[in-house]
Amino acid sequence: MENNAIPKATLGRLPHYLRYLKGLSPGTSPYISATSIAKALDLGDVQVRKDLNAVSGAGKPKIGYETEALIRSLETVLGCDHMTAAVLVGAGKLGKALLDYDEFEEYGVRIAAAFDCNTQTIRLNRTKEILPMTQFDSFCKSNHVQIGIITVGQGSAQSVCDRMLKCGITAIWNFAPCALSVPAGVLLKQEKLALSLAYLNNQLKKSF
Amino acid sequence: MENNAIPKATLGRLPHYLRYLKGLSPGTSPYISATSIAKALDLGDVQVRKDLNAVSGAGKPKIGYETEALIRSLETVLGCDHMTAAVLVGAGKLGKALLDYDEFEEYGVRIAAAFDCNTQTIRLNRTKEILPMTQFDSFCKSNHVQIGIITVGQGSAQSVCDRMLKCGITAIWNFAPCALSVPAGVLLKQEKLALSLAYLNNQLKKSF
Repeated sequence: MENNAIPKATLGRLPHYLRYLKGLSPGTSPYISATSIAKALDLGDVQVRKDLNAVSGAGKPKIGYETEALIRSLETVLGCDHMTAAVLVGAGKLGKALLDYDEFEEYGVRIAAAFDCNTQTIRLNRTKEILPMTQFDSFCKSNHVQIGIITVGQGSAQSVCDRMLKCGITAIWNFAPCALSVPAGVLLKQEKLALSLAYLNNQLKKSF
Repeated sequence: MENNAIPKATLGRLPHYLRYLKGLSPGTSPYISATSIAKALDLGDVQVRKDLNAVSGAGKPKIGYETEALIRSLETVLGCDHMTAAVLVGAGKLGKALLDYDEFEEYGVRIAAAFDCNTQTIRLNRTKEILPMTQFDSFCKSNHVQIGIITVGQGSAQSVCDRMLKCGITAIWNFAPCALSVPAGVLLKQEKLALSLAYLNNQLKKSF
């Protein structure tokens, strides 16, 4: 299995394949063809074959893919067989919205908790809590948290980031509208929500 | 001025140029060089020159750009001289977070109001309101709304989209995790928040 360079668009389709394959009734053939997956999900044959090749190698000619093996490969690539723990700092509206977003788990990431400065522990639902920052360091260390999501304001984003890195976090997803500086080796994804809207607006003006 | 194909990354830097140029004290030279902008904003010379060429044509050799003209070009491309009105449907946590996000106006888009099914009018701040869906059609028509932002659940996203199109909206920014079908000519941007996190997670696993 080649897990080195899966493009973002391919990655986005993998949960659909996984959901479909897991939903197949038991007792059907142990093999499945790219063509039947493509038909069921309303995708192109060639695209499905290319996507699946990226995660599990080519199917057998005229037989297809072994369904169980394909499920295992998809789970491995998506990380569903070994969830990555994430924490979120900044439990304002955006932070709470992300905390509610179930789709992340389909991609192998579980937001284990949210933190905020001005809070006492709030239990949101069966599994998620908003905790005070005083518990941040010990939580990250004992839960082997690897991903930090920053949804605080611009003014405190860098100090939150520094604290995350000190606690062993190695990947940062930043929603604060400011550039963060991180040492080499740390993964940093700057989310720019406004940019999607800007692009849409620019295309809109162009089309008249 | 060439407004046909401004790449997203360039578009993302334009508000920085605009803010910098507008902040220059009056009485300084009416011209500015790409080099001095680059130095002030900690960007590369070549990048700044390329970005500015895309919005206003080349600067004059050894003189640079006429500051006032450059400001006007940036405002035109970003649409700040003629704001596009947007509405948002679905005033849950994500919807409210987007409504709070000031950065959109820097890119020429103003979220004029949010709508929700189960609400009476709520005044959020000086200028923004959450209105009941019963007022949606008349609001869109009288405010010439062009962009619709969908932050409802998967189940009602398509019907919200259809209603937006009926009211004259021609660009849709969809946060619901489902594919929408729109007629040709309508601009559609599907936001996939989970994908950024999935990509980060995939890179994280790769790096070990």
